[in-house]
Amino acid sequence: MNLLRSLVSYILVFAFTQFAAAQSAPDSALSSSSQSLLGYTSRSTATERELEKKFQDTVVAGNIRESMRRLSARPHNVGSAYDKDNAEWILARFKEWGFDAHIENFDVLFPTPKERIVELVAPTKFRAKLQEPAVSVDPTSNQTPEQLPTYNAYSADGDVTAPLVYVNYGNREDYEELDRMGISVKGAIVITRYGSGWRGIKPKVAAEHGAVGCLIYSDPRGDGFFHGDDYPTGGWRPRDGVQRGSVMDTDYPGDPLTPGVGAVPGAKRLDVKEAKTITRIPVLPISYSDAQPLLAALQGQVAPDAWRGGLPITYHVGPGAARVHLKVTSNWDLKPLYDVIATLKGSDPSQWVIRGNHHDAWVNGADDPISGQSAMLEEARVLGELHKQGWTPKRTIIYCAWDGEEPGLLGSVEWVETHVDDLRKHAVTYVNSDSSSRGYLSVGGTQDLQGVVAGVAHDITDPEKKISVFERTHLHAIIQAKDAEEKGKLRKRDDLVLGDLGDGSDFTSFQDFAGISSLNVGYGGEEEGTQYHSIYDDFYWYTHYADPDFVYERALAQTAGSVVLRLADADLLPFDYTPQADAIAKYESDLEKLLKDKQEEITERNTEILEGAFTATADPHKTFVPPPVDPVPPYMNFAPMKNSIEKMKKSSERYSKALAKFRSATDGAVSPSSLETVNADLLGISRMFLNDKGLPGRPWFKNQIYAPGAYTGYGAKPVAAVREFMDEKKWKEADEQIPMVADVIDHVSAGIDKAGGDLENAVGK
Amino acid sequence: MNLLRSLVSYILVFAFTQFAAAQSAPDSALSSSSQSLLGYTSRSTATERELEKKFQDTVVAGNIRESMRRLSARPHNVGSAYDKDNAEWILARFKEWGFDAHIENFDVLFPTPKERIVELVAPTKFRAKLQEPAVSVDPTSNQTPEQLPTYNAYSADGDVTAPLVYVNYGNREDYEELDRMGISVKGAIVITRYGSGWRGIKPKVAAEHGAVGCLIYSDPRGDGFFHGDDYPTGGWRPRDGVQRGSVMDTDYPGDPLTPGVGAVPGAKRLDVKEAKTITRIPVLPISYSDAQPLLAALQGQVAPDAWRGGLPITYHVGPGAARVHLKVTSNWDLKPLYDVIATLKGSDPSQWVIRGNHHDAWVNGADDPISGQSAMLEEARVLGELHKQGWTPKRTIIYCAWDGEEPGLLGSVEWVETHVDDLRKHAVTYVNSDSSSRGYLSVGGTQDLQGVVAGVAHDITDPEKKISVFERTHLHAIIQAKDAEEKGKLRKRDDLVLGDLGDGSDFTSFQDFAGISSLNVGYGGEEEGTQYHSIYDDFYWYTHYADPDFVYERALAQTAGSVVLRLADADLLPFDYTPQADAIAKYESDLEKLLKDKQEEITERNTEILEGAFTATADPHKTFVPPPVDPVPPYMNFAPMKNSIEKMKKSSERYSKALAKFRSATDGAVSPSSLETVNADLLGISRMFLNDKGLPGRPWFKNQIYAPGAYTGYGAKPVAAVREFMDEKKWKEADEQIPMVADVIDHVSAGIDKAGGDLENAVGK
Repeated sequence: MNLLRSLVSYILVFAFTQFAAAQSAPDSALSSSSQSLLGYTSRSTATERELEKKFQDTVVAGNIRESMRRLSARPHNVGSAYDKDNAEWILARFKEWGFDAHIENFDVLFPTPKERIVELVAPTKFRAKLQEPAVSVDPTSNQTPEQLPTYNAYSADGDVTAPLVYVNYGNREDYEELDRMGISVKGAIVITRYGSGWRGIKPKVAAEHGAVGCLIYSDPRGDGFFHGDDYPTGGWRPRDGVQRGSVMDTDYPGDPLTPGVGAVPGAKRLDVKEAKTITRIPVLPISYSDAQPLLAALQGQVAPDAWRGGLPITYHVGPGAARVHLKVTSNWDLKPLYDVIATLKGSDPSQWVIRGNHHDAWVNGADDPISGQSAMLEEARVLGELHKQGWTPKRTIIYCAWDGEEPGLLGSVEWVETHVDDLRKHAVTYVNSDSSSRGYLSVGGTQDLQGVVAGVAHDITDPEKKISVFERTHLHAIIQAKDAEEKGKLRKRDDLVLGDLGDGSDFTSFQDFAGISSLNVGYGGEEEGTQYHSIYDDFYWYTHYADPDFVYERALAQTAGSVVLRLADADLLPFDYTPQADAIAKYESDLEKLLKDKQEEITERNTEILEGAFTATADPHKTFVPPPVDPVPPYMNFAPMKNSIEKMKKSSERYSKALAKFRSATDGAVSPSSLETVNADLLGISRMFLNDKGLPGRPWFKNQIYAPGAYTGYGAKPVAAVREFMDEKKWKEADEQIPMVADVIDHVSAGIDKAGGDLENAVGK
Repeated sequence: MNLLRSLVSYILVFAFTQFAAAQSAPDSALSSSSQSLLGYTSRSTATERELEKKFQDTVVAGNIRESMRRLSARPHNVGSAYDKDNAEWILARFKEWGFDAHIENFDVLFPTPKERIVELVAPTKFRAKLQEPAVSVDPTSNQTPEQLPTYNAYSADGDVTAPLVYVNYGNREDYEELDRMGISVKGAIVITRYGSGWRGIKPKVAAEHGAVGCLIYSDPRGDGFFHGDDYPTGGWRPRDGVQRGSVMDTDYPGDPLTPGVGAVPGAKRLDVKEAKTITRIPVLPISYSDAQPLLAALQGQVAPDAWRGGLPITYHVGPGAARVHLKVTSNWDLKPLYDVIATLKGSDPSQWVIRGNHHDAWVNGADDPISGQSAMLEEARVLGELHKQGWTPKRTIIYCAWDGEEPGLLGSVEWVETHVDDLRKHAVTYVNSDSSSRGYLSVGGTQDLQGVVAGVAHDITDPEKKISVFERTHLHAIIQAKDAEEKGKLRKRDDLVLGDLGDGSDFTSFQDFAGISSLNVGYGGEEEGTQYHSIYDDFYWYTHYADPDFVYERALAQTAGSVVLRLADADLLPFDYTPQADAIAKYESDLEKLLKDKQEEITERNTEILEGAFTATADPHKTFVPPPVDPVPPYMNFAPMKNSIEKMKKSSERYSKALAKFRSATDGAVSPSSLETVNADLLGISRMFLNDKGLPGRPWFKNQIYAPGAYTGYGAKPVAAVREFMDEKKWKEADEQIPMVADVIDHVSAGIDKAGGDLENAVGK
């Protein structure tokens, strides 16, 4: 998957207090060589700075380019020959660079297409091609026999013929709008466009509304010619381009047959029929050249303004004479996964810094995932070289090249499920990457890591502008901010705000299941198009439109590698909880605001219903069903959560104060053994966000603060236990979840408090 | 022209204080039969109510339909045989209905096309058709020999070949954005799309930036298939549809050769070369089927997101290899105008209520202007019938069917210029209409008439919903309001807010030149498409997509006719100045807000320039020129205007108080002669908004409060003397205009004060 460009919310906002007009100061507070690094004594700061500089200077763009060329040379989806070949090649590299590496296998359910039919049977006939043609200038686009056909993995098998209805993005709000138009999709096949939420939500919500089939097409307004010339003239999705992708439901990620446990030999496996994460209706993705005849055949009301795309037709909602035949069947085989796990043992092997990126792709996948994978391999090469030159990390570093991410995070989830006990004991942080390209640094993650990321971002030079990537991203955030007030706030901040992570790449099981502080790091925003999950996401495309000179690929290796180094070598784990407490306070105030907004919105709508505004303004030439009067949401008791957040703020302040004292301590003033006590405290804190029961209805998701939504897919929905019920207008149930969330925050506070006390003991109060 | 659907600002917002939930009270304060009508004693209120009811009941939709069929049967542009024929037919009708009617002629410059060429000469060849084809189901669309070819009247003659640049809507902000992209249009032909401002501004601004030619095309995103099925399947502009229209510059409307005086025989005429209102460069309108090959040939940067239309191409800005040949020549003849003027003499012929709508069209013009003209004729028929039954209006009523509105308000402007002295002496109000269709009541005008319009709107029944048109429009405004606060404000108001009138239909010379309180009345918002200024704006189209049953045509006749009746028969002219003083106070606070916004915007942008945000975020793959540092606007002295507005508020309150006393006075308590004194005062007040020097640089525009902008065309720009300089960043000049505007408001206040005193004398203080 390509989280980086799929999530709007996934924006790193950088800010710092004092901004010297016109040019950046060479050393800001965060990178100043006069201050120790976060988690480092002043002596080890100097060593670390030298090491990181050497690391950064040794990263070679050309190596990343060559890795990409090799790894994306042939289609390498799960179960393909080249997937295994790539894993073995990666394994050989890690070994060559001095890592202790092996391949770990799992056997997982991964369906591949057997039959696919989409045809208009009335009022005229049209049969969809369902095929991406080769492009003559693109040397890998003609590897047709090895390419997975265009399909959505984990679609139910089915063969249906039914009237067609256009449902926009196919999310729940869209069906509310259809209700206003008096249109039901019961017994219909829906056609929906990609975008505005994760694809798997589309067939899920369609089935909930009684649809019998689902088509998802790529509208040129979303990622085609509307934005720029299409491929190969430009980099945007061409008329026959299709977005493959998983539609596995989000009850749990990973192998559908082994929820919660590793898919190892002998594991208890569900029958395919029992697997809850397979869709209830057949679904297929199509290109807009295949979609246009279907959409053009629709009659009925004209689609609302915001539903219209970029095709040269009038978008109608339907239904009408248009009937579609949709047939999907798959081979429901188990396929082998090849996770490459490479370890560089630290002087203290009880703490692990884990770094990962997947290697499987839908087709050639130069961007997704090889751009991230190739940069990660270059990091590992340089770490290996530094190790050969005598450096050994304090903590153990584990590099992971995951298989099976595309179908449903299979490789990482099965590995984490298998090793969860060890991971909860030893894992300090998981640092993920995935697709990456030209542009701005973008980091999401748990806010205990905000400080260390900001510190590193200050040290990496932007290849285009020769300022720090921190500064470039910060200025971008200022330019993008919606008003002068927000711009002013940004200018005054001296930290950075990490984007919220939900689901959508391999950090999911680490953060949401195992309770491990996580990051996702990438660059982007200046790529000139996208071929997401298409045969055209390949070396030719990437080297023309994404990062032709591999300069941001180099920056990614420098950034993520430096984060790994800084985490691995720190005397004191570089966590800081004040930003996290602030973030959780913001999540809570967002919940309160949501309730208030909903109360006002429903009150206002009820008033309009009762004063007759809807009936008075409905055009009698169009069917219109006024919305029903909704109960106004009751007030909820947020006090338990607010009280626990106040505690967390206090304990975080205590810890931050002790941390500041540690940073300014003279060398030798703090005993290593007293620091180890604090490190052990810190290691456990992120685990305290877990609750073994998991989220209501989604027991796999243990984290009570960080989670995706059941109807957002990739998108994060912080404090999901409360928020999900609110979104379903179950106010009482939402209210009941608050004390449980408060308990979890209380545990976290206690953990931070203990660490604060131990750090005070170490540095003197 | 079709003002109704061209101006976004042109929205009537209705509101009233107490709103009974779920259904309207049958009698609100404004229409309550227990209270006298505004300007009426209680006895004459009863008579007037009875009369108006009879009037409204006698209006017959079928008559309007038949008038439309007759008047739109053939093309009837200025100078055509059918234009004269229509005028004579209208004249005969007025005479038949008992009006004293005649045709008044003027001879005006009206160019018609001789040669028109648009062709792409490089990199490939393409010649534009420049022809709207006949549609088989549409019986008048094949009258090709009589149809004016597609063109923009008052385009300069020219023959140019030059590179092409796409400039979006072609307004000044668009050229600022081109500056950021490093693109100049010097020596280029620009292609711009219709919309976002009046068409005549496009060649004007293009010429100011050095362009040598201008094409204006109708993008399907604006009025084509994006919104609904195109003609004849639906009502929207088809691929070959073209919007004709005048591009006469806005220094002054009317005949370009006789500015400020009537174009009567013997009038001093400028030479065509001296006429300031002819464009400086050749300009032609084209369809999107003619535009698409030109746009597709453009290279260079991809157009900004907001610049992209609905065609299935990537919109590029250019320039590049694309070169266009544009040739336009016209016959620069004088053509005769036929204004039909029909008088129904009042018992007091010293005060005139004037009602008008044009009869000329670009082609068949069923919607524009015949929908308004036909409804107006039905009003006149019924007034004639009432007159035959014994009713005589207190004031003289003059119905005007204007010729030559489309080229530049020729018929009304020349008539007003010819009769300006009499008009200033006698005219009470001018009530205009133009295109009208199914939907919501929409009224613009001077706010001294807000009360009378609201009163009438309450009495007219909406044909679709059987509630008052007041209520329907009010509920629509609530639904449309942007937030709960605005909705709440609307619910609390007990008046209505008239849209601001600038230019764009025949009220212009009355309001802006002669200082006569004016209204523009129409219905719309539920028409299903537009064929504005095309051969397809005809009877077939109108009766399928605009108001098939003529029910809103009937409502228009009822509404505008009732306004005329109420103004003509009132004992006391039904003006009230408190809403006008409030409106002018709002204009003033808008100016202050504009200054503050500009100060903040420029300060913020300067900060971003100085902190390097623009250069840091510019994509090096695209040309980007950072904006220049702008001087921050100085503070201005609004005090003189605020002081004069305070005076106006006080005098208005005094008058409103006396008016309330008059409304509740017992019959016979007020002597008719004392009322005549007040009526004479009131007649003069709107003239006090004039200043003989006119606006800076636009001496024809005498009104210092109500005016269009020099760069808005149709759009109103209240307090233009100040506002225009602010828009040009001439802060000192803007500041200097304020005392002059304050003087004008002081005169108005004095006038209101005198009327208030005289009314107090009449009704007792």
